[in-house]
Amino acid sequence: MPAGSVPGSLLRSEIASQPDEITGFLDRQAERVWALAGKLPPFSYALVAARGSSDHAATYARYAWGALARLPVLPATPSLHTLYRTPPQLDHALVLGISQSGQSPDVVAVIEDARRQGRPTIAITNDGDSPLAQAADHIIELGLSTERSIAATKTYTGQLAAVALLGAAFSRDRARLDEVMRVPDAVARTLAAAAAPAALAAARLRGISGILCIARGMNDATAHELALKLRELLRLSTDAFSAADFRHGSIALVADGQPLLLIMPAGLAYEDMRTLAGEVRERGGDVTVISDQATAAVDAASFLPMAAGVPEWLTPLVAVLPGQLLAVELALARGLDPDRPRGLPEKVVRTL
Amino acid sequence: MPAGSVPGSLLRSEIASQPDEITGFLDRQAERVWALAGKLPPFSYALVAARGSSDHAATYARYAWGALARLPVLPATPSLHTLYRTPPQLDHALVLGISQSGQSPDVVAVIEDARRQGRPTIAITNDGDSPLAQAADHIIELGLSTERSIAATKTYTGQLAAVALLGAAFSRDRARLDEVMRVPDAVARTLAAAAAPAALAAARLRGISGILCIARGMNDATAHELALKLRELLRLSTDAFSAADFRHGSIALVADGQPLLLIMPAGLAYEDMRTLAGEVRERGGDVTVISDQATAAVDAASFLPMAAGVPEWLTPLVAVLPGQLLAVELALARGLDPDRPRGLPEKVVRTL
Repeated sequence: MPAGSVPGSLLRSEIASQPDEITGFLDRQAERVWALAGKLPPFSYALVAARGSSDHAATYARYAWGALARLPVLPATPSLHTLYRTPPQLDHALVLGISQSGQSPDVVAVIEDARRQGRPTIAITNDGDSPLAQAADHIIELGLSTERSIAATKTYTGQLAAVALLGAAFSRDRARLDEVMRVPDAVARTLAAAAAPAALAAARLRGISGILCIARGMNDATAHELALKLRELLRLSTDAFSAADFRHGSIALVADGQPLLLIMPAGLAYEDMRTLAGEVRERGGDVTVISDQATAAVDAASFLPMAAGVPEWLTPLVAVLPGQLLAVELALARGLDPDRPRGLPEKVVRTL
Repeated sequence: MPAGSVPGSLLRSEIASQPDEITGFLDRQAERVWALAGKLPPFSYALVAARGSSDHAATYARYAWGALARLPVLPATPSLHTLYRTPPQLDHALVLGISQSGQSPDVVAVIEDARRQGRPTIAITNDGDSPLAQAADHIIELGLSTERSIAATKTYTGQLAAVALLGAAFSRDRARLDEVMRVPDAVARTLAAAAAPAALAAARLRGISGILCIARGMNDATAHELALKLRELLRLSTDAFSAADFRHGSIALVADGQPLLLIMPAGLAYEDMRTLAGEVRERGGDVTVISDQATAAVDAASFLPMAAGVPEWLTPLVAVLPGQLLAVELALARGLDPDRPRGLPEKVVRTL
């Protein structure tokens, strides 16, 4: 039966394709990206323009490039380029645009302003002929087979893989590049391990009306991406927080039975997330955890496993997967078709 | 009767004090800030560290300093300084910390790392003796009388006023400074005009379980601040979006009766917000609008007025006020005490 003829089968097949798609991308682009980073003119910070899921890939860049290459990363404010027509002075900047389709005019506008100022520009896109690709000096083409689901899954992890390659290349440390090349194996192992637990958790959580997604540091991007995914596919009321920001006010939301999704792989952010898990549990929160640590299950009503042994800076490529599976299973458990989420008419959104 | 003895009277009195508090701050600091900006060493971008409501003041800085002074503004990632101990290389950066209490160790850590690297640093705080004030080269002291409510109102608009002063000073255009000095009058007029409509809207909206706050450009900060305020005071499920990002997926959430709060003062962002108001209205959304434009009322079930004639770059200091009033009135309409929101035990949150 072809993907798409059964509710959820299209999105499931795209989720399942991620190990192969990322492997293909890395094989094609790893050495190219390494070489590209070596020949860029000097820059002191990176400005990244992106919207939607791609903006979460930009959030990942802030942490990964900061931790690996001590590079400050600035999320672009496209409105300054389009609406207000006051593009910032980009002296000392490297400027990147991330867009699956390469069509978003506001992301293209940021790249065009940067070129006008003589700054180096890079496009990360799945369409090498798109306006974004044409506007930039350099292209990192994902080269993934066309994503047919409206909800981005493999293009999101593909973008993260591109960000990770750039992080390794900016650090000029080949050991980092080797770490990236081992990610597809962890992706495959995680999809296998998390499938059944995701279905179980979905059955338990099928009646929820909202969920808060929380992480810290490197996985802030994962929390935001999963909040968006659950919102798109389920029309749930979701929100995403860094654990630090969450304590500054929003923890008030946690009352009896409040569902929370905590993303907490091993690493330097783990202990803080463990503490937070205990705190929200005490407030009566209903905790679902994505982790590779057995101790993370203590405060969890549902536990979604991910492959262990992934370096913390690469966990966002893996930790998002159990959440993708949970979103699909939850949609099906609620009688929705995740291949055709209501209210999302178009794959490509053009904002100015 | 002293403020605090009647539910909501403390928070109401602090909201009402904003015209006087901002006037006092501007009178004390306008010329000082102008002079400070003139003597800073050269910098190519600003890095701003903040948490909670202060982080929304940092969001305002991204737009205001970008539009007025073409200055790129980078929100800090404190985790890189504390958790991962990989502070970014801050060549060419001006580094600022914003914190009402000046106590947050992670914001202090960013300032300390910047000083270690020999970069210029500025603290914006209400406590001139705080660790943040002691860590920075320069202090912009708000000097507001102590905020006793847990929910920040006057310290938020005070921080915005400091950001606005810096924007004027970075632009070296004294006409901008004059515009800032006229803000307190618009603040007073808005509080007077919005009080009764806020109470009416609260009566109509008292049964809601969540609300989406949306703006574009300059008022992105306002959407995020009001989403936080409504979440803190009402334990509502809230979320904030830029109108552009909202179209990339989350618009799927808007079904029949979904409450939305649209912040749409006159200016370059207005037309896009008008279009969005029509779109969400067509999807059955229940629209409450904050605006100085009568045409904004067309798609609105509730209309919260603000003073007209404020330059767009300063509207965030005014547009937030009807939302503050709405939050207080909604809490009271639901039998909650906005002076003592449940689940928020401390005024000062220390995150590492």
